[in-house]
Amino acid sequence: MDTDRLLTNVSDFFFEYDTPRMVTIRNKRIGLIFRLIQLGVLAYIIGWVFIYEKGYQSTDSTISSVSVKVKGIGFTNLSHVGPRILDAVDYSFPSQGSDSFVIMTNYIVTPRQSMTYCTQLQSSEQCESDSDCMAGQFSRYGQGIMSGKCQNNSEGSKTCEIFGWCPVEDDSVISNPPLLMAAENFTIFIKNAITFTAFGVSRRNIVESVTKATLKNCTYHKVHDPLCPVFRLGYIVEELQENFSVLAYKGGMIGILIDWNCDLDWSEKHCKPTYSFHQLYGGMGKDQVSAGFNFRYAKYYKENNVEMRDLYKVYGIRFDIMVHGKAGKFNIIPTMTTIGSGIGVFGVATLVCDLVLLHALPKRNYYKQKKFKNVEGEASASKSTEIKE
Amino acid sequence: MDTDRLLTNVSDFFFEYDTPRMVTIRNKRIGLIFRLIQLGVLAYIIGWVFIYEKGYQSTDSTISSVSVKVKGIGFTNLSHVGPRILDAVDYSFPSQGSDSFVIMTNYIVTPRQSMTYCTQLQSSEQCESDSDCMAGQFSRYGQGIMSGKCQNNSEGSKTCEIFGWCPVEDDSVISNPPLLMAAENFTIFIKNAITFTAFGVSRRNIVESVTKATLKNCTYHKVHDPLCPVFRLGYIVEELQENFSVLAYKGGMIGILIDWNCDLDWSEKHCKPTYSFHQLYGGMGKDQVSAGFNFRYAKYYKENNVEMRDLYKVYGIRFDIMVHGKAGKFNIIPTMTTIGSGIGVFGVATLVCDLVLLHALPKRNYYKQKKFKNVEGEASASKSTEIKE
Amino acid sequence: MDTDRLLTNVSDFFFEYDTPRMVTIRNKRIGLIFRLIQLGVLAYIIGWVFIYEKGYQSTDSTISSVSVKVKGIGFTNLSHVGPRILDAVDYSFPSQGSDSFVIMTNYIVTPRQSMTYCTQLQSSEQCESDSDCMAGQFSRYGQGIMSGKCQNNSEGSKTCEIFGWCPVEDDSVISNPPLLMAAENFTIFIKNAITFTAFGVSRRNIVESVTKATLKNCTYHKVHDPLCPVFRLGYIVEELQENFSVLAYKGGMIGILIDWNCDLDWSEKHCKPTYSFHQLYGGMGKDQVSAGFNFRYAKYYKENNVEMRDLYKVYGIRFDIMVHGKAGKFNIIPTMTTIGSGIGVFGVATLVCDLVLLHALPKRNYYKQKKFKNVEGEASASKSTEIKE
Repeated sequence: MDTDRLLTNVSDFFFEYDTPRMVTIRNKRIGLIFRLIQLGVLAYIIGWVFIYEKGYQSTDSTISSVSVKVKGIGFTNLSHVGPRILDAVDYSFPSQGSDSFVIMTNYIVTPRQSMTYCTQLQSSEQCESDSDCMAGQFSRYGQGIMSGKCQNNSEGSKTCEIFGWCPVEDDSVISNPPLLMAAENFTIFIKNAITFTAFGVSRRNIVESVTKATLKNCTYHKVHDPLCPVFRLGYIVEELQENFSVLAYKGGMIGILIDWNCDLDWSEKHCKPTYSFHQLYGGMGKDQVSAGFNFRYAKYYKENNVEMRDLYKVYGIRFDIMVHGKAGKFNIIPTMTTIGSGIGVFGVATLVCDLVLLHALPKRNYYKQKKFKNVEGEASASKSTEIKE
Repeated sequence: MDTDRLLTNVSDFFFEYDTPRMVTIRNKRIGLIFRLIQLGVLAYIIGWVFIYEKGYQSTDSTISSVSVKVKGIGFTNLSHVGPRILDAVDYSFPSQGSDSFVIMTNYIVTPRQSMTYCTQLQSSEQCESDSDCMAGQFSRYGQGIMSGKCQNNSEGSKTCEIFGWCPVEDDSVISNPPLLMAAENFTIFIKNAITFTAFGVSRRNIVESVTKATLKNCTYHKVHDPLCPVFRLGYIVEELQENFSVLAYKGGMIGILIDWNCDLDWSEKHCKPTYSFHQLYGGMGKDQVSAGFNFRYAKYYKENNVEMRDLYKVYGIRFDIMVHGKAGKFNIIPTMTTIGSGIGVFGVATLVCDLVLLHALPKRNYYKQKKFKNVEGEASASKSTEIKE
Repeated sequence: MDTDRLLTNVSDFFFEYDTPRMVTIRNKRIGLIFRLIQLGVLAYIIGWVFIYEKGYQSTDSTISSVSVKVKGIGFTNLSHVGPRILDAVDYSFPSQGSDSFVIMTNYIVTPRQSMTYCTQLQSSEQCESDSDCMAGQFSRYGQGIMSGKCQNNSEGSKTCEIFGWCPVEDDSVISNPPLLMAAENFTIFIKNAITFTAFGVSRRNIVESVTKATLKNCTYHKVHDPLCPVFRLGYIVEELQENFSVLAYKGGMIGILIDWNCDLDWSEKHCKPTYSFHQLYGGMGKDQVSAGFNFRYAKYYKENNVEMRDLYKVYGIRFDIMVHGKAGKFNIIPTMTTIGSGIGVFGVATLVCDLVLLHALPKRNYYKQKKFKNVEGEASASKSTEIKE
């Protein structure tokens, strides 16, 4: 008996198919609404999800590496230094050509500093007498430790004497025009290699169309030469609608974004980068708080066994090279998932049309009768006569 | 005939609407369960997916740039060097103020090294006689190439003589308390600019409420001044529940996370960063393998045409500034997608209630009869009398 | 009356349950197809979405910090310099041990450059007479500003004289074999700390099984020691199937990827990193445009108050250490979302089987009759006799 029942159940499970019973309503208005909504959902699924968003692909992001070479010569002729050439080794920091670097456009040099006593600038700690200066104290803007004496300085005012790197730096006057206006013609050669690890595809920004010959002479142009990886600084600053001498005066920060968006269902050769420039900081026109970019560094040396340094306050353009990469390739799983979700969205058509059918149309009560079959709960399980059609 | 049939089919397709036939069961238990599940799903969709996860928005990530300025003065007075001031140029590496930098808190200096022969430390290659030292060999912990001789060193033991930068560094004794405890009062001024490229929105961490005046004097505090971008080292270390002198002794690594989470449906002015600190490495208390942070660098110079260097083993706090950014803005497509997926989830209510109805309730056989209409497959296509209601 | 109607509606709303009426068709073919598709969808949901893709977990990405220590000694014996040792301070750039650094393998040194007049190399601006050289002009490949004179140079050709750092660099001949072949035995010790901020979990790549003792002697091996964070350069280059002397000759770029993929439903101790190596640029074999890696830096000094520099063109291997991190942990919301979406996908089974039932099976017209109940729209709302079963 039990085996029989089990067999019957298994047989029913595998050989029966339950399909929802449907009521076909012949009504022009509702029919059209239904088909229009279905068409809209289909257009959304095929047009947006499949074609635009590429829902049939699995995606991968990249690991990326950037290396930079700066080229160009600058020339300065300061009174106390004489004529000087500045090449990439002199004006770019750091030397290794990483993805974040500075090209100096202006600077203030305080040469031959040594560890001794001297007065400060007028703008620092002014004083009236020795009691105003606390010996052994630092100050937030001081450049050393106070000796306790109040002295006359070269500008005619009295300031607290300090022990530190002397003479102190005077950064109140910055050279205008900037000392390295020649930077406008410097070039940045960017080498970028990316790998889409999940797909095992590697690409370089020196694409097939860029040969050794073209590389020697080309310069990036948004329209005429969008794949040349050699960028002229003046062109970048123009593209940002900035004035180069304004940016070079107190420095600034510029981002170069290399965007890779590759469809690996096509040949790898179509996987090419696009470059865009973003101004991150700088430019006087915007009147920002703390605009510009600068940093200080020193060249240390010994003279008669005394440690000395030349202090440089460098104003320049800080470049940050950022790489975004995204690749897609056909994969059966996301395709099935997208189709499955799409089928779910089709339910909207039925939902909307049922609402219209049962609550808006003139014959809604009639349709309600046709759609719903009432079944009593507790009381009338055996009274078949009460079953309404 | 064919055109007629085609017209009929087209007419049927566009002017007919198929709606599922429903059985209305009047049963208090199942009715309540059904409405409760529907309410739960609705609450989940509206509360979680729409309001909390903002499912009606499309999102974007940022490109970001960070620049750092360190301020503060330190003072040391070593016997063989004399009193010295150390300013930001002296104790921060690298000079350019990038998003990863070191502030020196302790150091060992081995001055006046030159390329010659000398003995090693007791802790390195000890030997008994010349035959223990292989001429021309390097060793993993040696500081040069062995000359082949076994010599007495200054500590009284015999070690293999080497050719290299001499005298060798002795890093067995590190200054305690750390030489630059003043670093506790140093300040880090962080400038961060982000751009949400898809939305074309740019923000700086020097938000509208931070003016030039406030910037001169403010210091970051989690509660009292959460938007001031000037951070005091001692405060950061406190927040990490670490002891500054312990961290300064052998160095450590700290991460500063700048988190931007912006809802661009509101004014841009509400898009502000939050700062948090994370200890990545360091602190003696945790007794980790390879705790602390240090690196070596050298200042090179020539004396009587002989190349010499001062070797520094620098212990310090390495800061890594990391930026996370996410923005959302209303977009019709994700809204529709979320609504569509939500409709799909409503099917759970019917699924659960059908299970209860057909397998758990007392009258389940009766309901089964009412819900399912049996249709025979092969045998009884024409026998209408066998059709059960 | 109205209150009664309201009560009836509320009562109907809460105590009635609408379930779709189903037609049970007994047909072996369609029954089997239906169950097979349902089984397929179930296998996809449980096997792929739940188990493989871990759809029941919420995920988090990491913030990460990397610090590097290079160890090893190199030895060179150039005629004009004499025997020299190079340790990590001499051959690695920058000193701070950040996640992007260069290990020098070959170099060209142009010592004792000073700011004066000199001729250029044969490969630069050649000329016939003074009129070919424009005084005051820079050139893209020149190394200074032209003086206007055309001079004989040491190679016997005539080039435009320049004012700049003289003597100019001659980088036409690079040492082969590379000067620092010993770099093959150098080791890189990588310290990586990550934090999954959302889960508050921190991990270091020096995992529990790596003690102070093992750290002193171990070297990374893909199979024998996959958790030792000390990497020998020669091993990395072997893994990339490159020849070390070829890579060291003109330099190259290598990426080390540290991948963290952690299931935090298990103990944290199972959260371990995997290392992989990727060649980003370099190797002569591939005959790429602009292969290799090099940069220039200088050591500045003063002699008799004249500023001088030793210029180094450094060829080396640039390492970029990249960290990917992903963690998942059980969370009720993604679990419910996944289940809900899964239910939606089940609709595919009914969709496909309906298509087969109504358009492919022999008895399709019969089934169409059984499935669909026709209801007339405008004309026959009151004519019950026309209602077909």
